[in-house]
Amino acid sequence: MKKYSEMTKKELLSERESVLKEYERLKAQNYNLDMSRGKPSMDQLGLTESLLHILTNGADCKTEDGIDCRNYGQLFGLKEARELFSDLLEIPADNIILGGNSSLNMMYDTVARAMLYGVPGSDKPWCKLDHVKFLCPSPGYDRHFHICESLGIEMIPVDMTPTGPDMDAVERLASEDESIKGIWCVPKYSNPQGITYSDETVRRFAALKCKAKDFRIFWDNAYAVHDLDDNGDILLNIFALMHGTEYEDRLYYFFSTSKISFPGSGVALLALSDRNLEATKKIIEAQTIGPDKINQLRHVKYFTNAEGIIDHMRLHGMVLKPKFDAVLHTLKTELAPTGIAEWTEPKGGYFISLDVADGTAKETYRLASEAGVKMTKAGATFPYGKDPRDRNLRLAPSFPPLEELSLAIHVICVCAKLAYLNKTLL
Amino acid sequence: MKKYSEMTKKELLSERESVLKEYERLKAQNYNLDMSRGKPSMDQLGLTESLLHILTNGADCKTEDGIDCRNYGQLFGLKEARELFSDLLEIPADNIILGGNSSLNMMYDTVARAMLYGVPGSDKPWCKLDHVKFLCPSPGYDRHFHICESLGIEMIPVDMTPTGPDMDAVERLASEDESIKGIWCVPKYSNPQGITYSDETVRRFAALKCKAKDFRIFWDNAYAVHDLDDNGDILLNIFALMHGTEYEDRLYYFFSTSKISFPGSGVALLALSDRNLEATKKIIEAQTIGPDKINQLRHVKYFTNAEGIIDHMRLHGMVLKPKFDAVLHTLKTELAPTGIAEWTEPKGGYFISLDVADGTAKETYRLASEAGVKMTKAGATFPYGKDPRDRNLRLAPSFPPLEELSLAIHVICVCAKLAYLNKTLL
Repeated sequence: MKKYSEMTKKELLSERESVLKEYERLKAQNYNLDMSRGKPSMDQLGLTESLLHILTNGADCKTEDGIDCRNYGQLFGLKEARELFSDLLEIPADNIILGGNSSLNMMYDTVARAMLYGVPGSDKPWCKLDHVKFLCPSPGYDRHFHICESLGIEMIPVDMTPTGPDMDAVERLASEDESIKGIWCVPKYSNPQGITYSDETVRRFAALKCKAKDFRIFWDNAYAVHDLDDNGDILLNIFALMHGTEYEDRLYYFFSTSKISFPGSGVALLALSDRNLEATKKIIEAQTIGPDKINQLRHVKYFTNAEGIIDHMRLHGMVLKPKFDAVLHTLKTELAPTGIAEWTEPKGGYFISLDVADGTAKETYRLASEAGVKMTKAGATFPYGKDPRDRNLRLAPSFPPLEELSLAIHVICVCAKLAYLNKTLL
Repeated sequence: MKKYSEMTKKELLSERESVLKEYERLKAQNYNLDMSRGKPSMDQLGLTESLLHILTNGADCKTEDGIDCRNYGQLFGLKEARELFSDLLEIPADNIILGGNSSLNMMYDTVARAMLYGVPGSDKPWCKLDHVKFLCPSPGYDRHFHICESLGIEMIPVDMTPTGPDMDAVERLASEDESIKGIWCVPKYSNPQGITYSDETVRRFAALKCKAKDFRIFWDNAYAVHDLDDNGDILLNIFALMHGTEYEDRLYYFFSTSKISFPGSGVALLALSDRNLEATKKIIEAQTIGPDKINQLRHVKYFTNAEGIIDHMRLHGMVLKPKFDAVLHTLKTELAPTGIAEWTEPKGGYFISLDVADGTAKETYRLASEAGVKMTKAGATFPYGKDPRDRNLRLAPSFPPLEELSLAIHVICVCAKLAYLNKTLL
């Protein structure tokens, strides 16, 4: 088969006819397939079933130190739980604050605190400044962008490269503009491309020159242990790199078990320097008496140690890998020959990023919706929902069963082709 | 025995000698008794033991509507759980947002949102105003005051009366000063006095005239169902009174199961008007994907309905009543004859408020600390920790076992007497 770009008009018209026919056939099936969010599947949720009932009575709820997890207290979470994640992430337990069920919540709160109080190094609260800007490597995670939009923080897109954000641009912008106060990073298996930052990228982040004294890196290591198999990417430990340096206050490091145990009923984490921690403590003390310790203890008893989590994540990988493979297989079979699209082949995380032909992502999304396939909205992976080339789509293979998934990707491929052909021909 | 005020100097000196002797004897025992916070006791925590393991597998985690509580979603919490609390509090389920484990957290976040975004009726975010003030019925809950202090909100104390806050003062201040944006209320079994607002007080709140268009009542109904026995106080339903009136946006209503199931692992609630809910939703959407639904479902399965909660609270009352009785008995036996102190006799809640002689609360606290009895810090029940008459102490009878409790109260009585005698004589 010829690439679309090499086809004559007549060939394209004939191709369009057959693609349209297939599209109409699919549409008539009234599918209802959801590939919109990075949700674990039923199979994955079943992997931690016994977490539900691992604590059965009051005695089970006592910690090593005799703390009754059923009662008030422990502002930063259980010592055992902080140690478990310290072990896993190689971050000192003393620099870890455990929160509730959502690292997104901890990120929002961290930015909101900076707005209301400033951070160590700030002259004043960010809400008292005329302009606050964040660098946003794009495509990126829509919910990061949503936090900025909600809080009135201006977003400056920075291109993603195969080794992470374009660090030349990051360094130039951060060193020039004092109103640039932060950057969002998903450093391992980035959302949506599945890119892991190279060692050089991490090192450049750790030594970033910034005009703003209160610049912060929001390091959302959401997929730290989410490899598809034993051949996963390795990310340099930025906390260790920065800890003890003059730049250590610049890092807010986030993590959660949402995609390890249960999304919405896991444990979220914020790691930060001593000075950041002291400043944060003063504020959190006004906000809460402490997080859900019973649920933290469940996680400690279930996973025991870092190895327990790593072993467990192998099981997740075994469920996810065939799904990623299926998506990639269909893309390769159906889209590669046309030459109109590109995609990533991540070794972990929750997403595959699909770039269709310029100017056709929204239309592909619309066509897929009409055929009953729900995707993350086109444009959502860019600040303000504006994909400058209108080409990026985020595919989330985790949730649907394998058969549904292959079908959904087939629908998307047909839609991508039809969108291209319509644009070229009509 | 004579009242202290009727004693001659010689009699007082002799009384001081015997009180001091008893104090020294107590101090020598090296006690370690904690009456500082309103924490449920081990006996109370044991009442909901089976809540821990009421969900044991994936099928248990499905809701009536087929929602899998183990996965993401449901921004405002589970429908069933909202209905359970709707039933209990007689507030429409559609006006209820369920949060995480802490109503304090929801209160802080609600004030922080007002600071960052304003509320319906605001011209601008409160953080953009030169002055934001809250009325603070005093004595009151230290953590409410801490929220104001943390966020730079000026606190204006208002006296508490046996029927609730001094409403003449509340009405005058709220109607005069546009920078007064809110008031903290614990309307049933107020913290620390255990006062329940009278019907008239609630009605006056529901129809309050305010200068600020964006005034808000922070109605922390923490002890809504926390009666010591079947003879509990009855609080008028302010939500029902205000719902559908021109003032309905003025109410933020909070509640939690912290002292029903497990403190720190319960479910928190915010009830609010449609317009407040819409405005809040837009912001919460940026903050989280949703609260811990598994824990909400545990509560639904365990309590089933409002009656289940009410029945359960009878058991809590049966554990708490003897403790309240013991405190009151000791105060009556040891302090009443001296005439130097007054206290409340609440029918529920978690506290007894003790007013010792003017100018002796801090000293009583200090003496008790030195004798190994930890109380809530003197002054903590007032804004900025400043009790103008230095007389109020908050007693929290719930946590210590009965024998320890009686002993601790005896120590406090001895300290109150000694503080008075020292002040009068030295």
